[in-house]
Amino acid sequence: MFDKLKEECGVFGIWGAPEAANLTYLGLHALQHRGQEGAGIVSNDGVSLHMHKDLGLVGDIFGAKVLERLPGEAAIGHVRYSTAGGGGIKNAQPFAVQTSTCPLAIAHNGNLVNADSKRRLLEEQGAIFFSSSDTEVVLHLVARRPEAVLHERISAALREVDGAYSLLFMSDEQLIGVRDPHGFRPLILGKLKNAFVLASETCALDLIEAEYIREIEPGEMVVISKEGLQSLRPFEQVAAARCIFEHVYFARPDSVLFGQSVYATRTRLGAQLATEHPVEADLVIPVPDSGVPAAIGYAAASGIPFGMGLVRSHYVGRTFIEPSQSIRHFGVKLKLNALGNELKGKRVVVIDDSIVRGTTSRKIVKMLRNAGAKEVHLRISSPPTAWPCYYGIDTPTRQELIASSHSTDEITKYVTADSLGYLSTGGLHDAVGSRGEGYCDACFTGNYRVQFPKDEEKRSLRVLEA
Amino acid sequence: MFDKLKEECGVFGIWGAPEAANLTYLGLHALQHRGQEGAGIVSNDGVSLHMHKDLGLVGDIFGAKVLERLPGEAAIGHVRYSTAGGGGIKNAQPFAVQTSTCPLAIAHNGNLVNADSKRRLLEEQGAIFFSSSDTEVVLHLVARRPEAVLHERISAALREVDGAYSLLFMSDEQLIGVRDPHGFRPLILGKLKNAFVLASETCALDLIEAEYIREIEPGEMVVISKEGLQSLRPFEQVAAARCIFEHVYFARPDSVLFGQSVYATRTRLGAQLATEHPVEADLVIPVPDSGVPAAIGYAAASGIPFGMGLVRSHYVGRTFIEPSQSIRHFGVKLKLNALGNELKGKRVVVIDDSIVRGTTSRKIVKMLRNAGAKEVHLRISSPPTAWPCYYGIDTPTRQELIASSHSTDEITKYVTADSLGYLSTGGLHDAVGSRGEGYCDACFTGNYRVQFPKDEEKRSLRVLEA
Amino acid sequence: MFDKLKEECGVFGIWGAPEAANLTYLGLHALQHRGQEGAGIVSNDGVSLHMHKDLGLVGDIFGAKVLERLPGEAAIGHVRYSTAGGGGIKNAQPFAVQTSTCPLAIAHNGNLVNADSKRRLLEEQGAIFFSSSDTEVVLHLVARRPEAVLHERISAALREVDGAYSLLFMSDEQLIGVRDPHGFRPLILGKLKNAFVLASETCALDLIEAEYIREIEPGEMVVISKEGLQSLRPFEQVAAARCIFEHVYFARPDSVLFGQSVYATRTRLGAQLATEHPVEADLVIPVPDSGVPAAIGYAAASGIPFGMGLVRSHYVGRTFIEPSQSIRHFGVKLKLNALGNELKGKRVVVIDDSIVRGTTSRKIVKMLRNAGAKEVHLRISSPPTAWPCYYGIDTPTRQELIASSHSTDEITKYVTADSLGYLSTGGLHDAVGSRGEGYCDACFTGNYRVQFPKDEEKRSLRVLEA
Amino acid sequence: MFDKLKEECGVFGIWGAPEAANLTYLGLHALQHRGQEGAGIVSNDGVSLHMHKDLGLVGDIFGAKVLERLPGEAAIGHVRYSTAGGGGIKNAQPFAVQTSTCPLAIAHNGNLVNADSKRRLLEEQGAIFFSSSDTEVVLHLVARRPEAVLHERISAALREVDGAYSLLFMSDEQLIGVRDPHGFRPLILGKLKNAFVLASETCALDLIEAEYIREIEPGEMVVISKEGLQSLRPFEQVAAARCIFEHVYFARPDSVLFGQSVYATRTRLGAQLATEHPVEADLVIPVPDSGVPAAIGYAAASGIPFGMGLVRSHYVGRTFIEPSQSIRHFGVKLKLNALGNELKGKRVVVIDDSIVRGTTSRKIVKMLRNAGAKEVHLRISSPPTAWPCYYGIDTPTRQELIASSHSTDEITKYVTADSLGYLSTGGLHDAVGSRGEGYCDACFTGNYRVQFPKDEEKRSLRVLEA
Repeated sequence: MFDKLKEECGVFGIWGAPEAANLTYLGLHALQHRGQEGAGIVSNDGVSLHMHKDLGLVGDIFGAKVLERLPGEAAIGHVRYSTAGGGGIKNAQPFAVQTSTCPLAIAHNGNLVNADSKRRLLEEQGAIFFSSSDTEVVLHLVARRPEAVLHERISAALREVDGAYSLLFMSDEQLIGVRDPHGFRPLILGKLKNAFVLASETCALDLIEAEYIREIEPGEMVVISKEGLQSLRPFEQVAAARCIFEHVYFARPDSVLFGQSVYATRTRLGAQLATEHPVEADLVIPVPDSGVPAAIGYAAASGIPFGMGLVRSHYVGRTFIEPSQSIRHFGVKLKLNALGNELKGKRVVVIDDSIVRGTTSRKIVKMLRNAGAKEVHLRISSPPTAWPCYYGIDTPTRQELIASSHSTDEITKYVTADSLGYLSTGGLHDAVGSRGEGYCDACFTGNYRVQFPKDEEKRSLRVLEA
Repeated sequence: MFDKLKEECGVFGIWGAPEAANLTYLGLHALQHRGQEGAGIVSNDGVSLHMHKDLGLVGDIFGAKVLERLPGEAAIGHVRYSTAGGGGIKNAQPFAVQTSTCPLAIAHNGNLVNADSKRRLLEEQGAIFFSSSDTEVVLHLVARRPEAVLHERISAALREVDGAYSLLFMSDEQLIGVRDPHGFRPLILGKLKNAFVLASETCALDLIEAEYIREIEPGEMVVISKEGLQSLRPFEQVAAARCIFEHVYFARPDSVLFGQSVYATRTRLGAQLATEHPVEADLVIPVPDSGVPAAIGYAAASGIPFGMGLVRSHYVGRTFIEPSQSIRHFGVKLKLNALGNELKGKRVVVIDDSIVRGTTSRKIVKMLRNAGAKEVHLRISSPPTAWPCYYGIDTPTRQELIASSHSTDEITKYVTADSLGYLSTGGLHDAVGSRGEGYCDACFTGNYRVQFPKDEEKRSLRVLEA
Repeated sequence: MFDKLKEECGVFGIWGAPEAANLTYLGLHALQHRGQEGAGIVSNDGVSLHMHKDLGLVGDIFGAKVLERLPGEAAIGHVRYSTAGGGGIKNAQPFAVQTSTCPLAIAHNGNLVNADSKRRLLEEQGAIFFSSSDTEVVLHLVARRPEAVLHERISAALREVDGAYSLLFMSDEQLIGVRDPHGFRPLILGKLKNAFVLASETCALDLIEAEYIREIEPGEMVVISKEGLQSLRPFEQVAAARCIFEHVYFARPDSVLFGQSVYATRTRLGAQLATEHPVEADLVIPVPDSGVPAAIGYAAASGIPFGMGLVRSHYVGRTFIEPSQSIRHFGVKLKLNALGNELKGKRVVVIDDSIVRGTTSRKIVKMLRNAGAKEVHLRISSPPTAWPCYYGIDTPTRQELIASSHSTDEITKYVTADSLGYLSTGGLHDAVGSRGEGYCDACFTGNYRVQFPKDEEKRSLRVLEA
Repeated sequence: MFDKLKEECGVFGIWGAPEAANLTYLGLHALQHRGQEGAGIVSNDGVSLHMHKDLGLVGDIFGAKVLERLPGEAAIGHVRYSTAGGGGIKNAQPFAVQTSTCPLAIAHNGNLVNADSKRRLLEEQGAIFFSSSDTEVVLHLVARRPEAVLHERISAALREVDGAYSLLFMSDEQLIGVRDPHGFRPLILGKLKNAFVLASETCALDLIEAEYIREIEPGEMVVISKEGLQSLRPFEQVAAARCIFEHVYFARPDSVLFGQSVYATRTRLGAQLATEHPVEADLVIPVPDSGVPAAIGYAAASGIPFGMGLVRSHYVGRTFIEPSQSIRHFGVKLKLNALGNELKGKRVVVIDDSIVRGTTSRKIVKMLRNAGAKEVHLRISSPPTAWPCYYGIDTPTRQELIASSHSTDEITKYVTADSLGYLSTGGLHDAVGSRGEGYCDACFTGNYRVQFPKDEEKRSLRVLEA
């Protein structure tokens, strides 16, 4: 409903805990913001893998009865947001298959840039594909490797693919976590008593009261079994390219990401924004909920009072009936309402984290003006989003990204704001504390770290779910 | 899940608009915070009433197909929260019945204090009851009145009952809104082009872009028909007793209630609280979402920085599986997570709107301390809640209200806070701007405006839904 | 889907058995043929009544969890088929209400002919109606009676109404069964150990292994409580008028109805039909399943071999998608298929129990001919159905009953049979063994035993379910 | 619920018809008796395959909306009954996958005896398996074949497997039907205008009004495309071994199977049974519905009157709550009730098609006796079922088949019949008209035509659905 980029997935795995499936369920619940289309859990009772997955939210898919049918002390889970063409239960993860040596499950956050060509090669060798997911390609590659040991088969297979992956594998004997050499997507390690936990974000640890140990490093593989945890470095080392947009918007503010508090980073983004784009005004308000930390930072740095000028409703379900007569800004109104009494006659700074197409920003500016705001100054706590992501984020095409073809002045006019200020790329890196290194900022700069096949026609699956 | 008082209902009605059921659906969506157990709509096509109601959330109950089967240019709707014993679809509103002169539907926010004795009398006269709702009593009384005109039958019937009611009635020819003489519960009037709208709160007008006209006055009845709107005063005038807790917690912050912005009132409550209970501290944080405005007010008045130390998840479904091993503060953890990096080593003022049993406050204080807070000072933007409500709010018994039997010192110890400060009753009235008049504050003072049958054993319905 | 008259209801009650709700569930399952639109059970734990009802089949509505919530050693249940206008959960039975003296549940098989005028009177006295059911009228009448004892209130109330009723009432203290003076609809008494059972048909006794005691007599009331069973005769005696169509079609063949085996009666109908309408033929086939016993009787009496020329599928669900291109006799084909090899070149006598509109018969005759039958002789084991039923059967209007306006010759032509023979009214009574007495045959003769208000406009309820 | 062998599947395919998915839906409806666990349809719009499958009955899975999402003029479908371990949506067919040259769907009736060893080989070559189905093995084999033409890849792949298969394949360009060299399972060819139809039984043709052309011969492959139909013989010829049990029980009586009317065959089985096992008796009754044709045949041949002594209810849902107190023969009573009046004092011949474990027969004999039958003579229209089937029928293990370890005398005692007579194997072949050739009768004789790996431990899948 909102004009936001969409995270494509979250993963969670645990090894060595009674009620592993229950804990995975809680972990996925904490990661629900990373994907709301579907979810799945595969548990491991030491002999077989047990799988349940469906479309919907974690809390709706897993009831007590289903969780009882997921026995064992190890489990992996996945929440999924999917792009338009690739939806359906067929693509829901984890995938769990039988290979010659063991049953094997996989859960993937990221995106492989050479999956289509690999897939074509595999098909030519007689592989059959049940899904349209790039993750199925990894399973085929692993199953075909001759190495004797599972983690070596996985390492060898992953050396054949390029792109972004934070992956969990689980056989009957091991839980394996691995992060691509650039480390685009997050993956962290925790402990709950004697159990090891792997998760996309630390907020999943907090809910189950597991202890945060450390980030899985870019290019690192951890192999967890009854022998304990072994850390491996199966790939050539390259410069890290952690997704900076996780800090800007994706991650939950209560997570510690790439070693930094997300909330604190976002308040710094707001403070930096106040320095770069000051304005005389009476009130700083966030676009809730994601704009709140940056707005607090902006307010504190600028000395302008912080307040709530927009209230958000959290009851919006998935399908909502539109009235046929035109209610202005309808989609946005279902979620946001402006506080007339707060805004009337005021010069307002409204803080949002990003602008994708600009449609929602335009509606918000108009809503604020209708509510009586005298001036509306839009401030964005990241640079203009002008380039698509190929590493696991669902972005519109370049044409749809308003900042790819319009100047800030033009965007200001389009959203009808009195002024508009984006954070600079330098300011972003400063606030994140990266000094320009270790992060991927391709969506702002077009500086892609892993090449992707630009011209290659996307191979569409010809088996569709009805 | 949270230790909060529960609003019992919200009502919405519209007369004279195409797609009346659709607009009612949107209005109920905006009022969803007033009741999540069930919802219903009755539409009026000028000949018959058409009804649909079910348990669940508005967005789940009403799809496009159901709304198509609710034709007409008038409709009323209801969202319901029910007390333990009185749940079930049988008690879902609106009720719609056939009377001798017309089909009649009713939607009720409030609670009648003499419903049981009236019911007994009606039963003795041969009335049969399909529900355990006090609202069904009103329908029987109306149907038995001899007056020729519907609104006179309603007036006469309501003169027989005592208590709190903001009521909507709809026949095939009229929409009637009426508020009890004390005006305990809110009811407002709006216009959408030529259509009249009645709703519990103004936020329902905002969503459908209707204009706010005014409050329906305590003791006022409005009769809306094709002849237009007629305002009547069928009751003897008494001192108004608007529910002050609507300002403290129930109403949406974006509503204008009893003529005042709820958000602005809440920030004033916070400012007043800062004056009454100052403390040396490093950070003011709200218990989200309801504590946010008061925390902003407290921070501004005290000069202590405002921040988010607790993050709230909005994905919690209705039934959630508890893991069997004890996770500390589990229920609260599903909704709230503390931001360790923000809190570490800090003296924190945490602002909440009220304390009911104290269980959640205790968990929150411990969660903040576990996250590293050096001191935790709890500030409550209302006086101690020590008396049950008999006028439409679901309160625990006196025994369960921690403030009815414990001093502030004892509560401070129980919740393990370093200090605890409640707003004074005087401060509450000042912030609301009431100067002690026009409001019911019985839950804080025990000063009940309408007598209720204390000793009378509650007559329990002996027909239960399985 | 088939052109059959529809039974409107079945009832079941039990008093004095552990697991009363479970046994009622089984009893309703055995009575499912009497109504497939909805079902309900009210149990009695000695203090309160517990109710569950829904639309659908018995086996789908009642799972183990629901049955657990229906405690007590007494229960009544109801299966319902409803006429077009009167559907919906609102009209599902049993009804259970609170009256001044006790909670009271009711389940009804039959139809009151003066319900509308009684209802108008009640409305004028201030009664409100939640349903459009004639059964609700009975509840109001009972609740308004001044007599001290429940069964006297019921007797007095029923003396005010006319028509057909086999009724079960249950309070917290009693189970009462009553049959109208004419005894239109069946009601039988059984025993299961110390428990008494009341049911529409004996097949419900067989399933729970209860013993069949006797028919409840026309005009009899039985009052069952912890004191045992008391038989009363609250009405003036009139000539019995048991529904003869129960024998022809409605009752299950394994029931003993009005003291006679339904299966044996139907074979006698077939034998009598063979005497009245002999024909030279090669094969006697039934329209399955209802025509089977009469076809066996016809074959035995005529000496023509019996066989299955039509096979019936029992997998047809409630909603079935029609292909858009015209498949001949589509609706019938989903349920019936003709056996070409059996029929080819043969002269076939096909036995059905009745013809309502004639549409299905026409399709069946054509289907048989397409399958190769040389001659198709249709024989009907009852007289022409020419008059609507006002006593609890859902019949089309007179205009729609083909026999009300067409001669047998004309019907023969319409259904395209080589010959058509209906059983004579005399033959029907002979086969049933009634000698013309004790039975209502109004649907064949127009001889109505209870007058009904012909010209009175049906009072339509103006509160509809969406 | 009944003690019957279970058919494992039915298949249906159509090429060249508008609304192909709708027609497939109807065809599957007609084949529902061959499998009730799940169903699926894959349609072909000339570019992509579109798939929908689920657990449940055909009429519940496919509504109008789902069928709209299955476009194209070709489709294949499948109904499935599954063995205990192999259930779940994961194994529901058709399977549809992407191969290097085309999308490919498959639907299978039968069972491969060397699937496990083939599967192990494929896994060793790197294949991954998403299901536990032998059918997935075929897909892998086809995808790995180097031949240029699809039907040649299929032929080559099938030459690698042994066992029973009537298979449908569909690519974007072709519909291919193939029957194993022995022709264990049926497959027939029909035409609907210009469209070709392949189906397990002719009753599927009747419903859509397609014309029956002929059986697909054992070992035949038909390739259907826009060029028309081409018949191939890709396998070495062997003696045919059509499943004789299809005639005894599986097929619908209105089907023409292996060139013979099933109904006529079954009446001949009954007549033959009367010759082999005559008895003095008063009444011949079937165990409905499957025993009806044989009972008619027995009655006609013996001169003993035919009648219905057992009535069957067709309302039994899938999950039925058992009352905890012991009701005798409970499971059977839900479906069957004995007609006391018909049976009282009579010597009864009861005809059933087969005895598997003997449990149901025992209950039926007791039920008949309880209902008053003086003598109960059980006659079975097939020989003793003493050997498991490996060719697509779900049979219990040898130990569970009562006839594998008990003499007819012992079984007579167990089922408590006065006498018991099985049809002889010779009599069976005579009635079927096979003269001992062309049929597989291994379940009666142990004469297996295709060897199966007796000792080989069944390779269990280690990925299970929860």
